[in-house]
Amino acid sequence: MIWHQGFIAVDWGTTNRRAYRVEQDRNVDTFADDLGILSVPAGGFPSAVEEIRSKLGDLPMLLAGMVGSDRGWREAPYVECPAGPAELADQILWVDSRTGIVPGVRQRGQFGPDVMRGEEVQLIGGVAAGFIAPDALICHPGTHAKWVEMQSGRIARFRTMMTGEMFALLREHSILAEALAGAAAAGAEFDAGAAEALAGEPLLSALFRIRARGLLEGRSGDGSSRASGILIGSEIAAALREFSSKPVAVMGRTDLCELYSRALHLAGRGSSSTDGREAFLAGIAVLTRNL
Amino acid sequence: MIWHQGFIAVDWGTTNRRAYRVEQDRNVDTFADDLGILSVPAGGFPSAVEEIRSKLGDLPMLLAGMVGSDRGWREAPYVECPAGPAELADQILWVDSRTGIVPGVRQRGQFGPDVMRGEEVQLIGGVAAGFIAPDALICHPGTHAKWVEMQSGRIARFRTMMTGEMFALLREHSILAEALAGAAAAGAEFDAGAAEALAGEPLLSALFRIRARGLLEGRSGDGSSRASGILIGSEIAAALREFSSKPVAVMGRTDLCELYSRALHLAGRGSSSTDGREAFLAGIAVLTRNL
Repeated sequence: MIWHQGFIAVDWGTTNRRAYRVEQDRNVDTFADDLGILSVPAGGFPSAVEEIRSKLGDLPMLLAGMVGSDRGWREAPYVECPAGPAELADQILWVDSRTGIVPGVRQRGQFGPDVMRGEEVQLIGGVAAGFIAPDALICHPGTHAKWVEMQSGRIARFRTMMTGEMFALLREHSILAEALAGAAAAGAEFDAGAAEALAGEPLLSALFRIRARGLLEGRSGDGSSRASGILIGSEIAAALREFSSKPVAVMGRTDLCELYSRALHLAGRGSSSTDGREAFLAGIAVLTRNL
Repeated sequence: MIWHQGFIAVDWGTTNRRAYRVEQDRNVDTFADDLGILSVPAGGFPSAVEEIRSKLGDLPMLLAGMVGSDRGWREAPYVECPAGPAELADQILWVDSRTGIVPGVRQRGQFGPDVMRGEEVQLIGGVAAGFIAPDALICHPGTHAKWVEMQSGRIARFRTMMTGEMFALLREHSILAEALAGAAAAGAEFDAGAAEALAGEPLLSALFRIRARGLLEGRSGDGSSRASGILIGSEIAAALREFSSKPVAVMGRTDLCELYSRALHLAGRGSSSTDGREAFLAGIAVLTRNL
């Protein structure tokens, strides 16, 4: 089986891509740039993929993320929940015999329509590598944050919250843009925003008060951290109403993991954090073992 | 008193202005264009005001709305709650002896920081004209929607929700932009969105499901009405938790009044609707009587 001799794992999103060469379960080389799928010209994917092999070696390759969406290279299918390593490996879209695109996951029925593409690799990888329990409640922060109930290492049900996108919209295009110019930091303003959201302040009002406070108190303050706290607090309040009372395994970018852990603590819920990159590599590895 | 012989009332917002000539409580002439405050060049307000007088007559004038903000002509003060006709008239900013800018209203203390500028004229006008009871609960939809508790014809407390701005952000800049291309209409999709929000579906999730539904069901559907229902439903759910159990007097643009009345009905709350333009004219009239 060729994959045992090494492979390339590619996490290819909307605005950037990151490729890893793996040999005997070790990441021995990495290549990353900002050629997200929206920056690839029409017909440009084959050469963009060859570029990765020219950097990291002529090896078999699995790609995951938005590269498998209708705006990516080829549209990979969605696997129905519950989805584990076997189901995902089974539905890989093979562009050629050694180049595959990992499917996304979809949910229909009683828990409502939802989709993910990219996070599924980290979810199964986090469990396979032992970072996360097979029946964990996982929070994966980001542009479209996911709350995921795992069952026996499979993705059983999930809910997407467009928290990160909302933050970006407010920051770039809203009346709050000026107040949100700085970076969000884990401090007193973040805590204040998270606390008011957890106490039930309406999201659409709490955000406006960043502006009202600025006008009335002449305080430009740290609007970015406040807004981040309000949004993440609102997300967590809603998720904790819905999902089990287990501790939350937060998995993703380390800066976001820190903010979520902090807000979860304010909500009285324990949490652990896992680096999404390591979980991604573990997830691709477990898929290669299911081929 | 010169105002008895007729005056001009100007509602001057961010993106447009509307001026009315009033004689003996009757609107006898109107002038409107899209010269919002953000379109007036530096130093251009005096001639923009003269243009109104050249169209409607050389009369005394009261201006209200964002023209009195830090981005407008001159910055008018904020009157503290509770604010009624006497308090507002008392704090008019006089540019000259017959040209005044109406102050805004601010709230501090236990109900949290909040501001309004422009709506206050409609609020006191709606009561003065008898459209609305002196102790009404008023909802004024818009970019920054206001929920206002009146007491004896004065603005006692209020809460702003940035519902309209959020809708515009989603429509112009978000991943939902394509699905939200159409106009929001009072129909089944609006009702479905409002109902899910009133039932407690988290805003950040319900919005994303417009996209998930499109991907899974190939249904482009009427995303605009659905999103409008979700946002207005979320606003109403939060407001009804906070404010008294009175019927809601909805006051503003007639198309928005229709959507809000519909969602309030779904929430089991009675409502009445008032055209914001008539209330504005009544509000300026009551201010002239308090000069």
